[in-house]
Amino acid sequence: MDIEEELKKRADFFNTQLEKFLEGGNPESLYNAARHLPLAGGKRLRPCFSLISCEAVNGDIIKVIPLTIALELIHNFTLIHDDIMDKSNLRRNLPTVHIKYGEPSAINAGDLLFIKAFESMHNMPVDCSIFKNIEFGFVDFIKEICEGQQLDMDFENKKIINEEEYIEMIRKKTAVFFQYAAEAGAIVGGGTQEEINALNKYGINAGLGFQIWDDYLDISSDESTLGKDIGNDIRNGKKTLIAVHCLNNATGNDKKLLDKIFGNVNATDKEINQVYELFKKLKSIDYAKNTALNYINKAKNALDVLPESNAKQILLELADYSIKRKK
Amino acid sequence: MDIEEELKKRADFFNTQLEKFLEGGNPESLYNAARHLPLAGGKRLRPCFSLISCEAVNGDIIKVIPLTIALELIHNFTLIHDDIMDKSNLRRNLPTVHIKYGEPSAINAGDLLFIKAFESMHNMPVDCSIFKNIEFGFVDFIKEICEGQQLDMDFENKKIINEEEYIEMIRKKTAVFFQYAAEAGAIVGGGTQEEINALNKYGINAGLGFQIWDDYLDISSDESTLGKDIGNDIRNGKKTLIAVHCLNNATGNDKKLLDKIFGNVNATDKEINQVYELFKKLKSIDYAKNTALNYINKAKNALDVLPESNAKQILLELADYSIKRKK
Repeated sequence: MDIEEELKKRADFFNTQLEKFLEGGNPESLYNAARHLPLAGGKRLRPCFSLISCEAVNGDIIKVIPLTIALELIHNFTLIHDDIMDKSNLRRNLPTVHIKYGEPSAINAGDLLFIKAFESMHNMPVDCSIFKNIEFGFVDFIKEICEGQQLDMDFENKKIINEEEYIEMIRKKTAVFFQYAAEAGAIVGGGTQEEINALNKYGINAGLGFQIWDDYLDISSDESTLGKDIGNDIRNGKKTLIAVHCLNNATGNDKKLLDKIFGNVNATDKEINQVYELFKKLKSIDYAKNTALNYINKAKNALDVLPESNAKQILLELADYSIKRKK
Repeated sequence: MDIEEELKKRADFFNTQLEKFLEGGNPESLYNAARHLPLAGGKRLRPCFSLISCEAVNGDIIKVIPLTIALELIHNFTLIHDDIMDKSNLRRNLPTVHIKYGEPSAINAGDLLFIKAFESMHNMPVDCSIFKNIEFGFVDFIKEICEGQQLDMDFENKKIINEEEYIEMIRKKTAVFFQYAAEAGAIVGGGTQEEINALNKYGINAGLGFQIWDDYLDISSDESTLGKDIGNDIRNGKKTLIAVHCLNNATGNDKKLLDKIFGNVNATDKEINQVYELFKKLKSIDYAKNTALNYINKAKNALDVLPESNAKQILLELADYSIKRKK
């Protein structure tokens, strides 16, 4: 099976639906700003989670389209607002919405996508009680994402974070999204409670694994970039699992080194390299890698209760795919 | 009847419920930022619209509490984001959320109130089909508010706006809120379709009337302030109904005067006064006043179909109250 091909097939199917949903709207200035990011492509990983979960419980994917659109719009709303908060200029190789349309319109465009996600949910051809069930979960996970975003921002000003706090932050900021996407896809698809629970567990663990793997990739990727990305993360005191592990395990002179350099925007390249060597010495990089792999394995094991199917195979490979990919 | 007393009674009742709903939450930094504005007081006009509508159809106000909380949270979410867009420093005599907590937290706090409004909606003790009906309307009017906000921003860059465009802007930005609040209060209260339609009509017309009356008050209030507020509005080219009427009716030298001064940030006090005199000469101020009064009358007439009750009297006086008040 070619997992990239399977994902692309579903992303293409999804894109057609999304474009249709985002057509028109008045005033055009607002709708153009709101369309800018969602129609700029992307892997459509969250919609794929829902679609394939629905398939894995033998559901009708037509029914799950409104949910997939809602998920992608929420994802894009968070990106638009996050880019304003982070003052990011580029996303998907394009100017961010606030750079292209100005900050006021970007805030408003994000808000519009937020509410249009709910509008899409209303198109779900399901019974009222299922609708309520799905929508309650939708509201809950979006609330957690707001909380996770704040935790992430608050971490910047905290000297030390323990691993539990770090996991709670990425759970809320990232993993609940995949958890909900997989679970809701199974509910709309008419899965049994056992199947729904399995896909919930698959989603949360895959989400945690993906995020920690991202931290790992950032630091293990091409050494030539070490001076830039990793240097910046160390200078900014970014709390990745690697940094969290190292900060919590360093003692003596190692701890003094970290205290001096981690989060020091004026650190020299030589100092950055000392911290990088410390990450290796305390096995923080390996620790993050293994933690990610554990979550990915948990995700895959959760699928044991599902009947064999093409969709189940795709979910298994999707979990692995994320940890094979390079940046 | 003392209308202010009646409103205060309901605002006090509402405030207790709102405080309870907004208690706690993690991380505290986010929830403190999110509580800052909604717990800073305010007239609670939107919750009052829903509560009194519910009473007017002989409904149980306990049932409508979650809706009133949702409305107030949406109102506050729009204020928080609008204040960022407008770079406003003060609201309700307090620093705005972005001034007190920083812009990233303010954007996020607004988003949290947005989603918590939906969370509150879920507490409504109504049948699933009524829930869906109420929630669909909720989503529709919030979408219109985003559109209205954009129309308002776009107007700043348009030389001329016709009256129809102006009414459409304030309908979306302001009036749909009151329309929905009144209508949904009647639905939750178990009103007949005729009563629901009447309160819908009451809400939209009262909302339009309030907004236009605000424009009128701004310019007709204490002459000593003419040099400040009115001057600023004229220098900024703010499209009130008064300005829209004047711009659309001025000819010859009057038109040349407007072209030169309206929207000219460097206009002198003498020039501002010339425009003010033109507003009077072309009867633009009277026109705005009469338009507001017409909407208020339409709102009151819509209530004819309701049975006599204390709540109906309050609604009638509430419509008049808004146009009696001074700034």
